[in-house]
Amino acid sequence: MPPEVRVIGIEGMPEFKDGDDLAGPMMDAALAQGTPIEESDILIVTQKIISKVEGKVVKISDVEASPLAISITEGHRRDPRHTEWVLRESKRIVRMDRGVIISETKHGFYCANAGIDASNIPGDDTLALLPDDSDASARRIRQAVKNRLGITVAVIVSDTFGRPWRNAAADIAIGVAGIDPIHSYVGQMDSFGHEMFTTEIAVADELAAAGELVGGKVAGVPVSIIRGYDYEIAEDASIQRILRGTEKDLFR
Amino acid sequence: MPPEVRVIGIEGMPEFKDGDDLAGPMMDAALAQGTPIEESDILIVTQKIISKVEGKVVKISDVEASPLAISITEGHRRDPRHTEWVLRESKRIVRMDRGVIISETKHGFYCANAGIDASNIPGDDTLALLPDDSDASARRIRQAVKNRLGITVAVIVSDTFGRPWRNAAADIAIGVAGIDPIHSYVGQMDSFGHEMFTTEIAVADELAAAGELVGGKVAGVPVSIIRGYDYEIAEDASIQRILRGTEKDLFR
Repeated sequence: MPPEVRVIGIEGMPEFKDGDDLAGPMMDAALAQGTPIEESDILIVTQKIISKVEGKVVKISDVEASPLAISITEGHRRDPRHTEWVLRESKRIVRMDRGVIISETKHGFYCANAGIDASNIPGDDTLALLPDDSDASARRIRQAVKNRLGITVAVIVSDTFGRPWRNAAADIAIGVAGIDPIHSYVGQMDSFGHEMFTTEIAVADELAAAGELVGGKVAGVPVSIIRGYDYEIAEDASIQRILRGTEKDLFR
Repeated sequence: MPPEVRVIGIEGMPEFKDGDDLAGPMMDAALAQGTPIEESDILIVTQKIISKVEGKVVKISDVEASPLAISITEGHRRDPRHTEWVLRESKRIVRMDRGVIISETKHGFYCANAGIDASNIPGDDTLALLPDDSDASARRIRQAVKNRLGITVAVIVSDTFGRPWRNAAADIAIGVAGIDPIHSYVGQMDSFGHEMFTTEIAVADELAAAGELVGGKVAGVPVSIIRGYDYEIAEDASIQRILRGTEKDLFR
């Protein structure tokens, strides 16, 4: 059998709000569409629905814009209070230009606008912030699947980030549970018997990207199942393993 | 039917060398393993085999190290002539630190060591450079499939690049044929009727990442098929659409 990985979107999930159970409706919807969650599946859960059930949807009008936020936003279409939220979610500004803020978020991610966005949430006055601890969010879903179905899965929380040097954005991992987010070939031999000194692959990011292929921004597919991928189970997995840390990075 | 995308690795391809036909053995191997290439498939072809058939495998000893290459390499494990090759493939040095060179390659990519590497090629004195024009490489494969099988596919040439801020590397696209590498939602409404102002997804990069999931660095799966993904056909596609260009980037 040739190696094959399947990426299956879960449709038909309800709209979520603060405090809702996410894992239950996810398992229900997968079953209802004829693709029940199976042992060793990887669930790719997009950040937006996590933020919704964890109460991370906020009102723009709940903050007052600081002079800095007003000054940054001047001449741009954005509400300065939106910018104020971006500043509050950041711990370090990396670049600031033409209304774009690239920062290190309080969670340790490097991204535009602290990962905050206004799409696919109800209301004109609302923003979705990133979950406080996406690893913990992933672990809760993994445990809920274990409790109800008695099976072991991996869970990746994904979000859409822009990248330096390349136009458009791509989905990457912001939280993991039950899977080592990096596959290391260090010390292994290549197909010609040369030792591969440095090859490490960020499989969690590649899996998140693959999950997006059945999602889409308007399609109502907030979760996908990746089946058939042979990953390394890690009970103590954390996205911290992928985050490089300021001191080692050349693009601080 | 729930949305589903399949990623199928092609095994059993021969070792390639300069001048070999690549598309023929690829179609043969897909057929031999029971997953013949089909209309609308996306073929993800890893850079290394393209470089091999296009004569981009070079000898380290074919160049002499310049004083700059010697100075950069001092105290590091690398052969200074390897560094000389990196300099020759670069058009601008972006960062240079601790033996790592991040440059803009002569093709316009931003990556470490000008995309040159020494793994999975025969010989101890050899390096694989990036193809001269990966869009053209992708177009040739697409045309060969059209000629022999009478079907229209898309082709993406992929390579493994490191990223700022995140540990480990991930596969991205360096050449495309027959597919718009970016899917734009600009002007569309989200599920709550808000216009999405800026969302563009680099689908070619996500597809390349998905392709890697069945590849692996030592597995001998240099090509994968992605089936079931509804992409936008673009006859004049080019990876240039993803490359941001120096003047617009905040991390030059």
